[in-house]
Amino acid sequence: MRRALSLAANGPAAGPNPRVGCLIVDADGTVLAEGWHRGAGTAHAEVDALAHLPAGAARGTTAIVTLEPCNHTGRTGPCSVALIEAGVNRVVYAVSDPGHASSGGAERLRAAGVEVVGGVLAAEAEAFLADWLVAARLGRPFVTLKWASSLDGRAAAADGSSRWITGIDARLDVHRRRAGSDAILVGTGTVLADDPALTARADDGTLLSAQPIPVVIGTRTVPADAAVRQHPHPPLFYPGPDLGAILRDLHARGIRRAFIEGGPGLASAFVTAGLVDEYLVYLAPTLLGGDRLALGDIGVTGIDEQRRLEIDHVERLGDDLLVIARPRALPSTPTASPEATAAETRHAEPARTETRT
Amino acid sequence: MRRALSLAANGPAAGPNPRVGCLIVDADGTVLAEGWHRGAGTAHAEVDALAHLPAGAARGTTAIVTLEPCNHTGRTGPCSVALIEAGVNRVVYAVSDPGHASSGGAERLRAAGVEVVGGVLAAEAEAFLADWLVAARLGRPFVTLKWASSLDGRAAAADGSSRWITGIDARLDVHRRRAGSDAILVGTGTVLADDPALTARADDGTLLSAQPIPVVIGTRTVPADAAVRQHPHPPLFYPGPDLGAILRDLHARGIRRAFIEGGPGLASAFVTAGLVDEYLVYLAPTLLGGDRLALGDIGVTGIDEQRRLEIDHVERLGDDLLVIARPRALPSTPTASPEATAAETRHAEPARTETRT
Repeated sequence: MRRALSLAANGPAAGPNPRVGCLIVDADGTVLAEGWHRGAGTAHAEVDALAHLPAGAARGTTAIVTLEPCNHTGRTGPCSVALIEAGVNRVVYAVSDPGHASSGGAERLRAAGVEVVGGVLAAEAEAFLADWLVAARLGRPFVTLKWASSLDGRAAAADGSSRWITGIDARLDVHRRRAGSDAILVGTGTVLADDPALTARADDGTLLSAQPIPVVIGTRTVPADAAVRQHPHPPLFYPGPDLGAILRDLHARGIRRAFIEGGPGLASAFVTAGLVDEYLVYLAPTLLGGDRLALGDIGVTGIDEQRRLEIDHVERLGDDLLVIARPRALPSTPTASPEATAAETRHAEPARTETRT
Repeated sequence: MRRALSLAANGPAAGPNPRVGCLIVDADGTVLAEGWHRGAGTAHAEVDALAHLPAGAARGTTAIVTLEPCNHTGRTGPCSVALIEAGVNRVVYAVSDPGHASSGGAERLRAAGVEVVGGVLAAEAEAFLADWLVAARLGRPFVTLKWASSLDGRAAAADGSSRWITGIDARLDVHRRRAGSDAILVGTGTVLADDPALTARADDGTLLSAQPIPVVIGTRTVPADAAVRQHPHPPLFYPGPDLGAILRDLHARGIRRAFIEGGPGLASAFVTAGLVDEYLVYLAPTLLGGDRLALGDIGVTGIDEQRRLEIDHVERLGDDLLVIARPRALPSTPTASPEATAAETRHAEPARTETRT
């Protein structure tokens, strides 16, 4: 399974589909074929692995796959059927498919007489697929909120100047993470103040191969010559203010990872609405004072209402510090009843139309 | 010299005197005696080491000492004279003594025919003695500014409630550092708002053996029943606002390490005045929003005026993060002219009455 997870990591981080890896092994544990998913519209990992074997060679084998085989016909057929037809007689998987159109693969396999074992290395696979699973379970993109601030929490000096608070290493890290997102969200205030390109760029300014879709939220008019209108993807505009509705619409458009870049107004609105799954806080070793805060009011009056986070990761990036945190009690992870098995957990989810395409 | 530095570390961190270690070795390099300084009023390291030898046994030996032997009669006599009288014929030291009353030991030794070598492991010894050296060179205490804030830079929720933002590990770390300071400084606003005890306490609330002197700055009246008046040391009161004058007075009272604990007004005033040598920022993984900032206005208008720091150290303390930083171009370290030797550097210092007592 660990090998299957490393195969999965070959797939693209962005896009609507999960990264999945698959091994076909014989009764002695010898690996006969490997496969992984390369993104929406291409073969799923199981089908990719089976395609490396001559007809009939998969008969009596075991498939080891990181995600429950799908049961859904999208641009590709159901993997459960492909495995049954190939004669695989045992399927071992890590994480159950939470998608309501695509789940049910395990049952279909069992109904066809295939032995099915779920939950192997489930914690590792859950962590690997965390953002995709949140999106699948909640019917909205996994939301990452990023800000850069001085050590005293300011995003800019009193006069609004902010270039550059963080150094080149931190800025390149942001660009790499933009490239791993499906969409990048900003408020109209930021577009008017900073005129950002919202592209993912390399050190020399050239565009990275993957680009997030720019999403501009707010009621102020974005000028015809705004840099965001030159983005490789046409921007999406939403007047707001219903952030939940915006996220659902982005999800329906295939967006699974949303990267909120600001400014403070939009950031605070997402925090207030409880719609942030991950925080990326770039802290520059500098002090600014003044009132240009990275985060504004978030509806907290007393200390009992504080929004507690957990720090996942701390990293030095050049002179700066990156702190990655997430909500302490992840509001986006529903709790299964104690007796529910891993395979049953998905039935507790709200009914969403989640499909793997 | 490395052994001498580890002997030095046996001494007390707080107090007016530097931590110094000394070895007496014979011509073969065999260690004959070791010594270190145990605090003001006790024997200096060199005298402590010599005291372990029978009369005459130090004749023809080498003394290895972390700081240039003093040339000053305080509560103890000059170490330079003690070494000469013991017949030591070679002295190796790391850092020159910047004190204007105590320096000159190297010259006195040379004048008596003793071979003197300075600057051995100087960088390590400088780092070890950093706070004491800053105090000696500038005639004011080494100033550590501490604050605790949420990840978004707030010291309290909108209604002022702040217990507890940081966890027990961070709070105990603060108490240990209080115990290593000579004085703890707060504004009258903090005394009135929080009624802090300003003691250094253990986990169970008992007092640690070393206690900083509480110093209260501001014009507001501190009530007769304020907790700070129950402190083991009687508090010092200064109306302010001349922080430089306050620090000079504290230095004259033997205070070498000042620990600024708040609130935001006092913290901002020290930052604005450029009087902070070290920043301790305890960051709790929580978000508060609102206007109760850990640091207020510091006179920065544009990004070009930002107060750049360097991060020295980052540490996880329970759920929290401790960031230790210092000013990027340390304003408290005067630059010696390129041709000046280590031993000559002290002559560039402003004339201060610095004595090792």
